[in-house]
Amino acid sequence: MRLRNKPWADEFIAAHPTIVVPNPEEWKGKWGTLFPQNQPLHIEVGTGKGKFITGMAIANPDINYIGIELYDSVIVSAVENALEAGSPPNLRLLNVNGAHLEKYFAKMDVARVYLNFSDPWPKTRHAKRRLTHENFLKLYESILPSNGEIHFKTDNRGLFEFSLVSISEYNMRLKYVSLDLHAEMPEDNITTEYEEKFSALGQPIYRLEAVFNK
Amino acid sequence: MRLRNKPWADEFIAAHPTIVVPNPEEWKGKWGTLFPQNQPLHIEVGTGKGKFITGMAIANPDINYIGIELYDSVIVSAVENALEAGSPPNLRLLNVNGAHLEKYFAKMDVARVYLNFSDPWPKTRHAKRRLTHENFLKLYESILPSNGEIHFKTDNRGLFEFSLVSISEYNMRLKYVSLDLHAEMPEDNITTEYEEKFSALGQPIYRLEAVFNK
Repeated sequence: MRLRNKPWADEFIAAHPTIVVPNPEEWKGKWGTLFPQNQPLHIEVGTGKGKFITGMAIANPDINYIGIELYDSVIVSAVENALEAGSPPNLRLLNVNGAHLEKYFAKMDVARVYLNFSDPWPKTRHAKRRLTHENFLKLYESILPSNGEIHFKTDNRGLFEFSLVSISEYNMRLKYVSLDLHAEMPEDNITTEYEEKFSALGQPIYRLEAVFNK
Repeated sequence: MRLRNKPWADEFIAAHPTIVVPNPEEWKGKWGTLFPQNQPLHIEVGTGKGKFITGMAIANPDINYIGIELYDSVIVSAVENALEAGSPPNLRLLNVNGAHLEKYFAKMDVARVYLNFSDPWPKTRHAKRRLTHENFLKLYESILPSNGEIHFKTDNRGLFEFSLVSISEYNMRLKYVSLDLHAEMPEDNITTEYEEKFSALGQPIYRLEAVFNK
């Protein structure tokens, strides 16, 4: 899906600098000072319309959250979601490309990375674009502590199969795997837009937690 | 499922010593000399009625196979399967407990371990009985070379979730994962009795390959 950036979206984003951080590269290494509370930071790469990250921010006030979304026209919905939720003080959004996280985060800036319903890029020649490809794992490792975690949910079987192998080959440890998350729904599961849609169709939702140190 | 051993089964097994190896502990470290061809040995722990191991032996004459089944009344069917298949020279069965593999196999006797539709032992207090529990992985490691592989199929979601984590925690590497084997059925897949039954019910079949060295 290629989404065109729209002028009205740029204006809307610029009008909400307390939600969408302008010049995020300036906060590299000092994100703790941007938020009212200096507390662990969890990020979501590919935040989409923001239902998950907003829900997490409200449910966990002792964690800071940053949702990263490249597409202007999509992040607009995440801003609207945040506004509707009363602009949680522990939530920010970045309108940048997740492939360049190292520009915005220093080692150990981030305690956990969430990936939810990422683009599966099913063609083999696009494997490098999958957010659990070795190159992305390397990127996450460069901004996480050694006990940093990746939490990943998807309805896409092929992407989940690829991710299990990719994470294992990268020498990460799987802490948790569910092959049908909604069969035994954890109480603290915050759903995404995609998750509700696909689960309603009877498709299993896959989920894993992985950690860098063994 | 607890299966009673039946006297007629004992007699039938004893009458087929070229299929069910008597005194298997005597072949420890020298299995190559038991078979007509000294070639790599793959074993299946929990062979059941033997459809898989017999099919594999016929499909791969350059590999020796040993199926291990504890229950007399079950292994009888595996013997019948082998007989019907013309007693493949590269196939043997052991009527022993898979929990004591070290009695029968020395380090590097075995090149690969197959686990198919193993008992899921769903209760947490029975986790140690699951054939992918750490203790069993340790056992397989003790009879395999460092590049030795475990190939595991099941329809049981809970057991597969447990196994992915257990294998990862054991510091093994996942080489391959399928979360719906029959969706893209590999040409060389040999089905088991359970596999046909559960797949016909529309349940996904899970499969993985794991290797000890990273």
